[in-house]
Amino acid sequence: MREVAIIGVGMHRFGRFLNLSLKDLGRVAVWNAIHDAGIDPKLIEAAYVGNSLAGLITGQEGVRGQVILRDAGFTGIPVTNVEGACASSSIGLREAWIAIGAGIHDTALVLGVEKMFCEDTARSLSALAADSDMELLGGLGFQFVGNYAMRLRRYMEDYGWTQEHFAKVTVKNKYNGSLNPFAQYQKPMTMEEVLSSRLVAYPLTLYMCSSMADGAAAAILCAKETAHRYSSKPLPTIAACELYSLHFHDPRKEDDGELASYRIPIYRAYERSGVGPEDLDVVEVHDAMAPGEMIRCVACGLFTPEEAPRMIEEERTSLKGTIPVNPSGGLAARGHPVGATGLAMIAELVWQLRGEAGKRQVPGRKGKGPQIALAQNSGGLVAGEAAVSMGTILKL
Amino acid sequence: MREVAIIGVGMHRFGRFLNLSLKDLGRVAVWNAIHDAGIDPKLIEAAYVGNSLAGLITGQEGVRGQVILRDAGFTGIPVTNVEGACASSSIGLREAWIAIGAGIHDTALVLGVEKMFCEDTARSLSALAADSDMELLGGLGFQFVGNYAMRLRRYMEDYGWTQEHFAKVTVKNKYNGSLNPFAQYQKPMTMEEVLSSRLVAYPLTLYMCSSMADGAAAAILCAKETAHRYSSKPLPTIAACELYSLHFHDPRKEDDGELASYRIPIYRAYERSGVGPEDLDVVEVHDAMAPGEMIRCVACGLFTPEEAPRMIEEERTSLKGTIPVNPSGGLAARGHPVGATGLAMIAELVWQLRGEAGKRQVPGRKGKGPQIALAQNSGGLVAGEAAVSMGTILKL
Repeated sequence: MREVAIIGVGMHRFGRFLNLSLKDLGRVAVWNAIHDAGIDPKLIEAAYVGNSLAGLITGQEGVRGQVILRDAGFTGIPVTNVEGACASSSIGLREAWIAIGAGIHDTALVLGVEKMFCEDTARSLSALAADSDMELLGGLGFQFVGNYAMRLRRYMEDYGWTQEHFAKVTVKNKYNGSLNPFAQYQKPMTMEEVLSSRLVAYPLTLYMCSSMADGAAAAILCAKETAHRYSSKPLPTIAACELYSLHFHDPRKEDDGELASYRIPIYRAYERSGVGPEDLDVVEVHDAMAPGEMIRCVACGLFTPEEAPRMIEEERTSLKGTIPVNPSGGLAARGHPVGATGLAMIAELVWQLRGEAGKRQVPGRKGKGPQIALAQNSGGLVAGEAAVSMGTILKL
Repeated sequence: MREVAIIGVGMHRFGRFLNLSLKDLGRVAVWNAIHDAGIDPKLIEAAYVGNSLAGLITGQEGVRGQVILRDAGFTGIPVTNVEGACASSSIGLREAWIAIGAGIHDTALVLGVEKMFCEDTARSLSALAADSDMELLGGLGFQFVGNYAMRLRRYMEDYGWTQEHFAKVTVKNKYNGSLNPFAQYQKPMTMEEVLSSRLVAYPLTLYMCSSMADGAAAAILCAKETAHRYSSKPLPTIAACELYSLHFHDPRKEDDGELASYRIPIYRAYERSGVGPEDLDVVEVHDAMAPGEMIRCVACGLFTPEEAPRMIEEERTSLKGTIPVNPSGGLAARGHPVGATGLAMIAELVWQLRGEAGKRQVPGRKGKGPQIALAQNSGGLVAGEAAVSMGTILKL
C-alpha cells in the first residue's frame, strides 16, 4: 500500500437547516474541502459518499452520492456510496484510503452528509431505528439513548462513575463546541445547567445527549508521493483505518462485549500504525451521549475504568490536558448528523495536526504541536454490539 | 495490486418470494458460495454487501449487510455496505477486489441482495424511482421502461432496428433463461408470444421487460497467490473492474451520451486487462428491457449499430453463436432484483469459465471452453445518463 495523505477538509456547519437539502449541505462541504486542498477539482479521480438515512428521511435512496455530486458540479468519475449508520463516512474514508493505497486512484474525494430534520419529526426519529435490526429491534421502540443509559449504569455500579462525572464531561465538550464555528451548539454550559436539564434516561439528562442534526463534512485524499503537487500545508497521512463489525459477545469469556467491539479496531489500528495510546496527542471519540466518551476512552486504552473518575476530575481530557478528547465538542456539542460525523472527526483532527484549530488548538504532548491523532467512530446496533466500529490514526 | 481470484459463487433463485426476507435470500446465496468455494467460513476476512432499495421497501436502512450477515452466522469481520442502484453488488465486487489487491485482506465475501416484492406493490414501484434524482425526476412518474423505449426508438430511426429484432433478442434470452435453474422465468417463448404480449411503451412489449424480483447472489474472492489453499477448481481472476458515474453529455460533441456512459468503463476495463472485444468468449450485459442488450453490445464494441440487425438475424449472440450474450437469460428472463443483478452476472460468468453451465454452456471462441468474459452492469439515472456504469473482465 502506498501512503495516503489528507490534503484538504471542509464542513457545512452542523445544525437545523429546514430549507437546505442534501445537495446544499454536500455542496458546501465538498467545495470547502477543495478550496482547503487548493486542488483543481478536475484532478479528483474518484468519490466516496457516506450517508445513512436519506432513503427514509428524504426519499433519496439508490444513487445518493451521484445525485449530490452531480449537483456539486462533478462529472465523469467513479462514485461509490457507502452506508454504515453513524460511521458511514468513516467507511468512505477507508475505501478511498484503500483505493489510493492500491494505486487504483491517485486522488479521491470523501463526503459524509446527512439531512435529519424534515417537516415530520416522527419520520426522522423512526428512521434512526433503521440503524438496528428492524426485524428484532425496529418495532420495539428501541432508542440509542436507552442503550447508552443502560451501559453507563453498569459502569456506575462497577467502577464508581457518577452522574457528576458525566456532567463534567458534558461541560468540557460544550465548552469545546463553543469554540468550534462548525458546531451545532456553540454555547458553554455549567454543571448546574447540565444536571438540571430534563432527565431523558437516567443517568442521562437532555444536554448530555446529541440531538438530530443536518450537516456535511468532506476530505480530499491523495497519494502522499504526489501530494506536494497540490498542497504546501502540513500533510497528515492515514496510518491506519480499521473497520470491525458483528462482534460476537461470549458472556463466558468477557464481561463487556460492547467495549470489545470498540476496542478491537482501535488496537488493530495501533498495530498497523505502530503507535500506542501513549503516543496520541489528540483524540476524537464517538459520544452520541457525551458521557459515552468515558467508555470510548477506556476502549482506546487512554485510561482504565478504575482510572476514569480521576481523569475526569483532574480534567486530563480537556484542551490543555494530558490527552485532549473531543476538542471539536464531540457529538453532543458539535452535533451528530450521523452520516457526516466520521468525517467531521477527521476534519477536526486535520485542523489540530496542522495547528489551525484556533482557540481550541491542543498543544501536543511535547509542546511542539500534535503529531499523532486517533478517531474512534462507531454506529448502529446489531445483536447487542456496535454494528460498525472503526479506528483511524492520522500521523503528521 | 495483487491478482484476485473468484473461488466460489452462489445464488438464491430469483423470483417472487413473499414469505422470504432479505436475511433468508442472503443466507442462501452466501452459503451456496461458501460451499462452492470449499472454504472454511472462519477464513473469510471481510464482507461487502450491495443493496439498493431495502430502506424504502423493507424499512431496513443503515446497517443492512450487518443485519443480514449476522443472521447468516458471520461474526467479527469488517462489513461494508455499498449502494448504487442496479449495479450495487458490482460495486461491492470492485471494493473487495481493490481491498484484496491492496493486501488489506486476503479473502472477502461479496453479497448482492434485493427484496422487491412486498405486500404493497405501489411502495415497491415508487422505491424504484429513488434510483434517480428524487428532486428532479422522482415526482414526475418517471419509469425506466419509458427511458429504454425512447432510447430504442432513436436506434430504430437511425439504424433500422425493428421491433422484430427486439423480439428475437427476447426469445433468445427467454430460451437461455429456460436452461438456468436460478432464473425467475424458465419458460421459452415464441416470437408470436413476445410480440403479442401487452404493449408497455412502444416498442417494448410486456415480455421484453424485466419485472420486479427478489433474489441474491454472492461470490468469495481471494488473493490468487493463496487461492490454491481453498479451491481445486479453475480460478477466474478479476482482470479489471471499472466504475464510472456522472457522464457529462455534451450534445455539441457526441450524439449519444447514454452510449458513452456505458462505453467508458468498458474500454477502461479493456485497457487495464489488455484484452479487447475480439478476445471475449462470453458476455453478460445489463438489459433491464431485453432489447437494451443491443445497445449494450454496441457500447462493449461487440458490433456497430449498423451491424446490429444482421448480428441478431444471424443469431450471433446465441449460446452457440460467435459471441454469446446473456447466457443466463439476462435481466428479463433471469430476473432483476436490482442489488443482486451485478453478482448474478459474475456467478454466470464464473460457471461458464469453469465449464459448469450445463445446457447453457458456451463453447468459447476456440472450442476449448471460454477463457475471457465481460460483465457490463449499470444502474440509475442522473442528469440523463447512467448514474453508475461498470465493466468487469474475468480471465481464466
